[in-house]
This record gives sequence, C-alpha cells and structure tokens, in this order.
Amino acid sequence: MRTFSSKELAEQDKRYLTNFINSLSGFKSLQLLGSINQEGQSNLAVFNSIFHVGANPPYIGLVVRPDGPEHDTLKNIVSKGFYTLNNVCEEFYQQAHQTSARYASGESEFTACGLEEEYIGDFSVPFVKESTIQIGLQLKESLSVASNGTTILIGEVVLIRLNETYILEDGTIDLEAAGSLTVAGLDSYHRTEKIGRLAYAKPHVAPKNL
Amino acid sequence: MRTFSSKELAEQDKRYLTNFINSLSGFKSLQLLGSINQEGQSNLAVFNSIFHVGANPPYIGLVVRPDGPEHDTLKNIVSKGFYTLNNVCEEFYQQAHQTSARYASGESEFTACGLEEEYIGDFSVPFVKESTIQIGLQLKESLSVASNGTTILIGEVVLIRLNETYILEDGTIDLEAAGSLTVAGLDSYHRTEKIGRLAYAKPHVAPKNL
Repeated sequence: MRTFSSKELAEQDKRYLTNFINSLSGFKSLQLLGSINQEGQSNLAVFNSIFHVGANPPYIGLVVRPDGPEHDTLKNIVSKGFYTLNNVCEEFYQQAHQTSARYASGESEFTACGLEEEYIGDFSVPFVKESTIQIGLQLKESLSVASNGTTILIGEVVLIRLNETYILEDGTIDLEAAGSLTVAGLDSYHRTEKIGRLAYAKPHVAPKNL
Repeated sequence: MRTFSSKELAEQDKRYLTNFINSLSGFKSLQLLGSINQEGQSNLAVFNSIFHVGANPPYIGLVVRPDGPEHDTLKNIVSKGFYTLNNVCEEFYQQAHQTSARYASGESEFTACGLEEEYIGDFSVPFVKESTIQIGLQLKESLSVASNGTTILIGEVVLIRLNETYILEDGTIDLEAAGSLTVAGLDSYHRTEKIGRLAYAKPHVAPKNL
C-alpha cells in the first residue's frame, strides 16, 4: 500500500498530479456541452465534472475551469442563458474526446469533430444529433469557488428528449440501453455492465435486489 | 422519441421524477463518506454527487442535501473539518447501499452495515477498511445553492492510500484494477469495461489511442 500526504502530493510532477487527481474520485459523468454565442457561432465541449443537484425542481451542476477552451463555453452560457448536455456513446466517443482540442475561435467543434448540430423545437442552442439522451438547460445560478478560481454552474433542466424505451417503469433511465459511457481521469472511456439494482434501504432490513 | 418540457416534468409523480432526474446526467462517482462527531460517534453514508474540482491543489466537491441522513454527515464535516471518501467495490456494494437507510443517531452505519472502520496515521476520521482507494479530505469551502437549499462542499485532498499497482506510469489510477463501481440513478450499480484511452487532443489531428 502506498500513502500520499499533502506534502508528497505537492511534490509530484504537475502532469502526473493532474492525471492522478482527475481519476481519484471515481468514474465520472460524461457529457457533451453544446452552447452558442450571440452571433450564432456554436461550440461543443466534452465535460466530466457534472453532478446531480436536485430532482424537484430538476437541477444539474457542472464545474467550468477559468482558462482554456472552456472559457468560450462559459461566456456563451452566461450571455445566452441556455445550454445543452448530450450523452456520449461508444459510436462517437472519439469525436467527443476530440472536442477537447483547442480549436481557434470562429471554428465550431461540431464541424471540426464530425458531430451534427440538431435543434429541438424553439430551443435556441444546438443539441448533438448522435446523442441518445439530450438535455436542454437554463442557467439558474453561478457559484465561484474561491479556492481555485473555478465556477460552478447550476442549470435547470427545461427540456429532455430520449427514446421512451429507455425509461423504466419507476422513472429510472436505463443508461446501458441508451449506450451512455463513463470516463475515468482525463481520457479513459468505459462501457458498463449492470451488477444489480437495490431496493430503498431500511434500517435492520437486509439489502434486497429489485 | 419522447420530449419532456418543464411543464411536463413538473407534472410527473414525485418519486418518478426523483428516479428520472437522478439518472439523467449519466453514470456517477460512487463513494462512501466517513465522518465522526466531537463525541467520537462515527458515521458512514453513500454519496454519488461527487465531482472533480481541481488537481493542483487537489480538490473534490460534493453535494449535501439539507434533510435526511445526510444532515449528520454535514454537521460532522463542519464541526470536525475533516472527512474521508472511500471507493465502493463489488464485494461490498450491498453494504454501501445499506448506509443510505435512516439509522437512529447514536448508531454507526459502519457497525450496522457490516463495514470496518480503519484509522490511518494520525488522521482523526475513519476510513472504510474494505475500500481499495481511501481519501482523506479537509473542508476548504462551503457553498450554498440558493435555488434548492443544498450545500456544496469543496474538500482538499490531504491523504490518499491505495495499492501502488493501481497507479499507471503517467499518474492515472486504473479504477478497474481497483475494482471501483459506478452508480446510475439512486440504486443501479455497475462495473465497467474499458473501451480505450485517447491521447491529448490537438486540432485537426485524428484521435489516437494511447
């Protein structure tokens, strides 16, 4: 067994530490974030710092870094007030990863990476046509993390489109049926295999499979 | 294809909506959060709203709901200033799920659910002995989400213990080697199968496997 203290972590090579800590917290949600600026220039970026904030009303959170390609995404979200999250499937995970390249502004990652824009109803921001679960969000709240200058955005889910067959009787989405992948660290992509679902836990009652 | 508007979401049965939205954002990080109060009473709770905030310095975020069993966890973290995150493996995922039951205060979920407390060095909060990746955190920042009364905690990673064989040459942790599971929705547990790792993306260069 190997133990790392704060001091030992700080002494690691920067790239090594980035890989190490990015994979530390476990498998992560993987989504393509679609946005658009006031001039109609679309943007697509792969995100893995996405988390459930609440179901009723439906909120999803994500972390945006202060620098790099995510800067355009943040500007677009704040100026437009709307954005989309689109799941990543095995058929196009390489294109999804490719959106993390630093394309020149003026170039849309949709075109550059070979993914198709899709508009749903009157929602003004593009979805990813290839995705099997498409989520439209309205920016609700922006929180600054003082400790490292990142921004946490809380979005309200205002539109969802998916194949109805993915929805189980109790409302749970069968993410394996939808073909959603998960990501570890910065670049390791994984499909999943269900072990089981467990019933609502009650004190002193043994866990039960659903 | 089925589309849900805001209005249609709000009309869903509460339990249905909880299952639906909890599974919407994709596969989630799964961790057991260990904490302890000033009287030495330990607490263990399964969490899935965990996200990467930054690598240097190393920060991990999590969402704590205002009510229910997570209330004790939040009190403990704030009063003690330290807590632990411990990965969940197939061998004990049922025990991990069982920690979500509402045990009486005064009863430790470690004992009640059959997981063993482990102390590492002089870190004053228990880890889960069965876990293969153990993370000690110090509370760094607490953010209130005004929209729904949840709290986002940002913790600095101050201690990590894992088997050195899980760490790949570039610092990435092989989460499959560690046996880490992922969770979908509230109760669906999944193992993973690696598809591939992709090299750092560059504009106009085709995605490359590592």
